[in-house]
Amino acid sequence: MLTPLKDFKKSIQKNPLYKFISPVSMFHDIFKAPPLSVETLSSKVLKTEYAVRGTVVLRALEIEAEMKRDPSKYKFDEIIYCNIGNPQQLKQKPISFFRMVLALCEYPDLLQNPEVEKIFPKDAIERSKIFLKNVVGGMGAYSHSQGIPFIRESVANFISKRDGQKCDGDDIFLTDGASPGVQAILRSITRNENDGIMIPIPQYPLYSASLAMIGAKQVNYYLNEKEGWGLSVDELEKSIQKAHKDNVVVRGLVIINPGNPTGQCLTASNQREIIKFCQKYGLILMADEVYQENVYYKDQKPFSSFRKVLLEMGPEYSSVPLFSFHSISKGFLGECGQRGGYYNTTNIDSAVKHQLYKMASVSLCPNVAGQILIELMVNPPKMGDNSYNNYINERDGIYESLKRRSKKLGEALNKLEGVTCNVPEGAMYAFPRIRLPPKAVEAAKSKGIHPDVFYCLECVQHAGVCIVPGSGFGQEDGTFHFRTTFLPLEEQIDSVVQRLTEFHQDFMKRFK
Amino acid sequence: MLTPLKDFKKSIQKNPLYKFISPVSMFHDIFKAPPLSVETLSSKVLKTEYAVRGTVVLRALEIEAEMKRDPSKYKFDEIIYCNIGNPQQLKQKPISFFRMVLALCEYPDLLQNPEVEKIFPKDAIERSKIFLKNVVGGMGAYSHSQGIPFIRESVANFISKRDGQKCDGDDIFLTDGASPGVQAILRSITRNENDGIMIPIPQYPLYSASLAMIGAKQVNYYLNEKEGWGLSVDELEKSIQKAHKDNVVVRGLVIINPGNPTGQCLTASNQREIIKFCQKYGLILMADEVYQENVYYKDQKPFSSFRKVLLEMGPEYSSVPLFSFHSISKGFLGECGQRGGYYNTTNIDSAVKHQLYKMASVSLCPNVAGQILIELMVNPPKMGDNSYNNYINERDGIYESLKRRSKKLGEALNKLEGVTCNVPEGAMYAFPRIRLPPKAVEAAKSKGIHPDVFYCLECVQHAGVCIVPGSGFGQEDGTFHFRTTFLPLEEQIDSVVQRLTEFHQDFMKRFK
Repeated sequence: MLTPLKDFKKSIQKNPLYKFISPVSMFHDIFKAPPLSVETLSSKVLKTEYAVRGTVVLRALEIEAEMKRDPSKYKFDEIIYCNIGNPQQLKQKPISFFRMVLALCEYPDLLQNPEVEKIFPKDAIERSKIFLKNVVGGMGAYSHSQGIPFIRESVANFISKRDGQKCDGDDIFLTDGASPGVQAILRSITRNENDGIMIPIPQYPLYSASLAMIGAKQVNYYLNEKEGWGLSVDELEKSIQKAHKDNVVVRGLVIINPGNPTGQCLTASNQREIIKFCQKYGLILMADEVYQENVYYKDQKPFSSFRKVLLEMGPEYSSVPLFSFHSISKGFLGECGQRGGYYNTTNIDSAVKHQLYKMASVSLCPNVAGQILIELMVNPPKMGDNSYNNYINERDGIYESLKRRSKKLGEALNKLEGVTCNVPEGAMYAFPRIRLPPKAVEAAKSKGIHPDVFYCLECVQHAGVCIVPGSGFGQEDGTFHFRTTFLPLEEQIDSVVQRLTEFHQDFMKRFK
Repeated sequence: MLTPLKDFKKSIQKNPLYKFISPVSMFHDIFKAPPLSVETLSSKVLKTEYAVRGTVVLRALEIEAEMKRDPSKYKFDEIIYCNIGNPQQLKQKPISFFRMVLALCEYPDLLQNPEVEKIFPKDAIERSKIFLKNVVGGMGAYSHSQGIPFIRESVANFISKRDGQKCDGDDIFLTDGASPGVQAILRSITRNENDGIMIPIPQYPLYSASLAMIGAKQVNYYLNEKEGWGLSVDELEKSIQKAHKDNVVVRGLVIINPGNPTGQCLTASNQREIIKFCQKYGLILMADEVYQENVYYKDQKPFSSFRKVLLEMGPEYSSVPLFSFHSISKGFLGECGQRGGYYNTTNIDSAVKHQLYKMASVSLCPNVAGQILIELMVNPPKMGDNSYNNYINERDGIYESLKRRSKKLGEALNKLEGVTCNVPEGAMYAFPRIRLPPKAVEAAKSKGIHPDVFYCLECVQHAGVCIVPGSGFGQEDGTFHFRTTFLPLEEQIDSVVQRLTEFHQDFMKRFK
């Protein structure tokens, strides 16, 4: 029974179960709800963790504020943020053509100005006119909740060509970046706290965070660090058997390819095994393919979408439902702040798609600029267009540089004492294993924090490099890692390597 | 027990309870999850309804497609969308200054071009430079998850001035439109299916949809149609007492002011009563104030924010937690497609705010263009700036026109047989009551649809005007309504009035 007003505060302080007390009493008139405090928030919210923007980043922001007040306080003159795949924060330039088109769409009066042709190439002007004709109400109007139809058609064309398998615009859902799409699917396919989704360990914490928030079970499967973060079906089997023993109904399997934070790329034969595994257990496959352009050894390990592999396996596998995710935030675009993404459904019936449309409609629509960038990404300037050469130069410049930086960072990490690192084949991250001296582990414990959190806090404190502890992504018990991007520009990546090296040597010395 | 593979398909077709069957069997090796179908989606998702983009809109889109194939099929030549507050879809022009600044921010190379000063006014150029200096990485970088710090400071300044009460940038959370903010708060403050939130009836269906999706209780309180959709504390008392009898822990109260779909504006004395009510029951107040600029009788009923009223009531009320919501989609901006919004916390402690930050960080950040538009909204050109006069002309032109249109539509609706309508004092909608003839009610029932859905489907079919059934917003049992915006431009609003009038007369005749 809920206590009356006067005794309420006392009672809730004493009774840890007050959340579950019935609000009804026949003897009193006024029943107060428990006051708003962190203890009375949703337990799902409290359980959610997202390390990519967690403790270490908050410490980095504090240090930045301290440096503003006293520039001599630290031995570095700026924090380098390697915690997140955010290329433009680290001064990567956006693709010019895309931004020209966006500028013209934001301010269409420019098109009436006779000066416009002196400033913008012809194809950028033409392209913006196509958008303004096809996007009802322009950038400022809510669009179709599933995304602007002609943009969805364009995405479908891109996918049809990429996979050699026809795709339909009705199977495309545009989103504000890939993350809201992932969350919408997880929310829809898990029915209660007994339903589970298999995710890789290490994983991108969007998955663990979203499952915690929704209140569904996280079912871990482990990537094999010794085999270049390989994914074996034996491990998937082990994982699902364990989940079944724990009474979990496993509904879906998440694959991140290329891997985040692990940077590995799957072979097509491995993908086929995974699809067979999904069929065997009736699993919904969720393919996070946002790094599909970030593949650095295309000859040995070209990217194949799960959609292509699945459809090529023939009608026997048409019962395997697949959701594939893509984004403007990664690749060579790096348009993170513009929030554009999509997901593509394969083998999903129209009644399910109608429910996904309905869920999308509650948030009205993804932002229109992000939608337009999606269209530009899948349909860039073509040979012969005024902007083609410039586009190719910018694109290839970024790609080649990312490849060089991934190698440079991976190799430098491998030279450090007690550190091993699979040189990334794709994505934007290295995920080295660090062997911490017992004294460092003790020091962390005495502070009540995880040893790799301790290492990363020391790193931002002493080297001004912001990296993320492996515990935020998951790792085998007893091992420690961190994730770092290789996104600092080439003129800066040497400094990152140097800072990390000096810090690590000093750290190992201090805790020997 | 889950059945083995071979019997699985049969069993699930027979057993409606298969969702709840445990997946474990000691006798079999392979347990398939139930296949993906609309029946095996989350029941929370299935229960969610969002009429603003529901059946009637889908029918309108179908009619549009039919008209493309056969332009003579309908007696109108276009559908007029009055289902949603989406001004630019109906050709309202965006504020020029805002779009100039956005164009320059999207393509900063323009600022290096000597032609730029011929095209853009000086203050637009200056303003874009301020953004590019303060927004790390520009439009393409993920920002701080809570929103760009200098923009939050600017919002806090605006609120401080508006309310005469100091506000802090740490209390501002920028969002992709107001909707994701509302959902984040509802998700955080409801702990289980026994926690409830009071919402007005009629309401904007974001609230009912979000509560269904989260799995919390919707506690209805009714607005009084006869008194201009007035909100009485007696009704709030009745509602909470009933909820307590039903064992619901009422945690929060939603107020939409100005009202949506009802268009009424609250007086400050009414707001004080509401705050006292919240204090009495320990409720968290959620003030949806996205229509704060859409107030058409400012002399009689000026807008006061709940924050201002609450803080002026003194420290005695500092235990009442308040979340206030605002947006770039409404007012005279109508920048719906750009997805910008914020919420402002009052009397919320920092541990709770940290949890809200963490939740925001899982989705990384709101889109940067939307954040910039928020800053422009709260800090528009000032007297003496090059763009000031133009800004004022555009702003006042839209405002005065909306006021004229609200009156025109409200009065026209009142002239229809069996229709009564409170002329809107604010927002963008009229919500007339329609008395449907028994034969129309029967016709609807024979089709298995709600009578007001039937009326709205007939309206889009015969008049080409897309409006939303009252049942999508909630209404007193036995009454029927619809919501229509008054957003069509003045040259079109006469046509809307004429189409609605002719349709209604014909409908009443047909079902007499």
